[in-house]
Amino acid sequence: MHSILDIPDDLAPVHGALADALQRVAERFDAHLASDLLPVNDLVRHIERYRGKMLRPALVLLSGMACSPSADDPEACVTDELIVLGAVCEMVHMATLVHDDVLDEAAVRRRGQTVNFLHGNETAVILGDLLIAAAYHLCSTLDDPYPSRAIGEVSMTLCAGELLQLANRENLSLDMETYREILDRKTAALIGVACRLGARQGGADEALASGMDRFGRLLGLAFQIQDDLLDLTGEEGVVGKSVGKDLEKGKLTYPIIDHLAKAEPDRRAATLRLLKRAAAGDEAAPNKLVGVLREDGAIERARLAAESLVNEARAVLAPLPDSGPKRYLGRMADAVVQRAF
Amino acid sequence: MHSILDIPDDLAPVHGALADALQRVAERFDAHLASDLLPVNDLVRHIERYRGKMLRPALVLLSGMACSPSADDPEACVTDELIVLGAVCEMVHMATLVHDDVLDEAAVRRRGQTVNFLHGNETAVILGDLLIAAAYHLCSTLDDPYPSRAIGEVSMTLCAGELLQLANRENLSLDMETYREILDRKTAALIGVACRLGARQGGADEALASGMDRFGRLLGLAFQIQDDLLDLTGEEGVVGKSVGKDLEKGKLTYPIIDHLAKAEPDRRAATLRLLKRAAAGDEAAPNKLVGVLREDGAIERARLAAESLVNEARAVLAPLPDSGPKRYLGRMADAVVQRAF
Repeated sequence: MHSILDIPDDLAPVHGALADALQRVAERFDAHLASDLLPVNDLVRHIERYRGKMLRPALVLLSGMACSPSADDPEACVTDELIVLGAVCEMVHMATLVHDDVLDEAAVRRRGQTVNFLHGNETAVILGDLLIAAAYHLCSTLDDPYPSRAIGEVSMTLCAGELLQLANRENLSLDMETYREILDRKTAALIGVACRLGARQGGADEALASGMDRFGRLLGLAFQIQDDLLDLTGEEGVVGKSVGKDLEKGKLTYPIIDHLAKAEPDRRAATLRLLKRAAAGDEAAPNKLVGVLREDGAIERARLAAESLVNEARAVLAPLPDSGPKRYLGRMADAVVQRAF
Repeated sequence: MHSILDIPDDLAPVHGALADALQRVAERFDAHLASDLLPVNDLVRHIERYRGKMLRPALVLLSGMACSPSADDPEACVTDELIVLGAVCEMVHMATLVHDDVLDEAAVRRRGQTVNFLHGNETAVILGDLLIAAAYHLCSTLDDPYPSRAIGEVSMTLCAGELLQLANRENLSLDMETYREILDRKTAALIGVACRLGARQGGADEALASGMDRFGRLLGLAFQIQDDLLDLTGEEGVVGKSVGKDLEKGKLTYPIIDHLAKAEPDRRAATLRLLKRAAAGDEAAPNKLVGVLREDGAIERARLAAESLVNEARAVLAPLPDSGPKRYLGRMADAVVQRAF
């Protein structure tokens, strides 16, 4: 995420401190997963290639900096605890990616082949389990039990969100309220916890930490809606993972649910037929569907919804005293809906 | 496990306290997994049917009782922390069962249909994840961070063992040393930790807790060798899960590895051909293979190896002062190799 920002001079110190800290997060991640067993190490090294935007660790670090009394010296804010929390959030996220790829039968992730494609579903399931175990273990090494409780709880939330999504997978009358619930649990909650744990570590009191949690959740919702848009309109080479998978798996996403809720009965019936054809493997259906969604304005409305969530998130930041890390967080929020990958 | 023991009068108080405590473990297990989402609750209720011998919680409880200064009043030893630790170990174990069923494509578990069979692999993967998350979350609610660290660490060990096994799945020259390594990580380590955490909670010092860990590991190894035997020679209706799966999946187990290591070249080549036929789906091959293993004495040697591990485990208990819980642990150890399911 950070790497796609156009960084003005005044944010250069934050950017530098963040880049150094993310490097430490990556090293901690790798060190904690290193195994004395060769086949395990080979798999773990493959996972390192999945490392992308590092959105969650970046949010842990920036939230910690922005809530610290020494926010003006971002480098000084980077404690070892903050690095550990960043690595823990990234491990939980990476575990969900590995298991999601099994669920989605995806072959490509970050321009590389997935673990399930290369080594089979069995290995991918257990490798995901190893990542979750590593996350909890690393988290439990902290003196403070609060992060372990938060990470344990949010992981349960995340799984419940996935199960709710699976239970509604071929439900063509999935409503927006349920869908928001899915997004909130499946994606937004972990991003919220990343911000909360970072903020707390930086010195935030409970009220401020909760505010930062809300900031993260709003950002997470916007992020997921942008993902929905990219699955419909992105280009595989740019997005770096398989696109059109949601339709193939019969998953309704934000623009489609919104379109179906607002469409006249005839239009609705025609769209449902297109969805069924897409799920049945008709390769022409997805493009037709995207055409319908554009014409209806549903693509544009989803874009606006994501933007509005980002604005809401930025408003949550307002009470924080001005600082480089705070401004950087604002720019990251904007980048969530401006990204093409 | 406890339920198959023939309980003499002097152990009736331990048996009663254990049965009550296991009931509390089951209630804590269910309560911690209860969700506000209906589809999640339905799945969790299905999992409750997997509950079988509750070996791990029973070992947590009995180790706690046996190491407590009030071992002679077993009921008084059952603290809330001990119940939580029992539920945590059972959750970790249950998660591995759910994911193992995905890996093994098993349709039957404890005389009921598996989650993957009923709801698909996707749901089974995430339900397993939910169980792991619930285990960690519940464990993190304890004041003492030691159990969280131990459970996090042993979960990593467990996954590494599974990955080592997967990496050797079609390796027909798998040696006994590597196989012992797999069993130790995949099965024995968690049973060891169950005993260690229980012992510690009961008041054991580090040396005694380590001894109890070793007791559990030895028992776990014996348990797994018995499982290997049951997969070859058990009856599906009695075992309560699919049998012959190891052969179908090309997994070498204790009696086979031992047989191959000791067989003359011609016999070895013939057995390898049988193994390949079994893995290719030849339905007559498993029975022929079992005949070969019986004739060679490999079945009997595996039985003796399990028995010898149990004797070693019983010897580890020796330094503990005599008490009902200690004697009960000894009987459980015997039951591991006497069971037919």
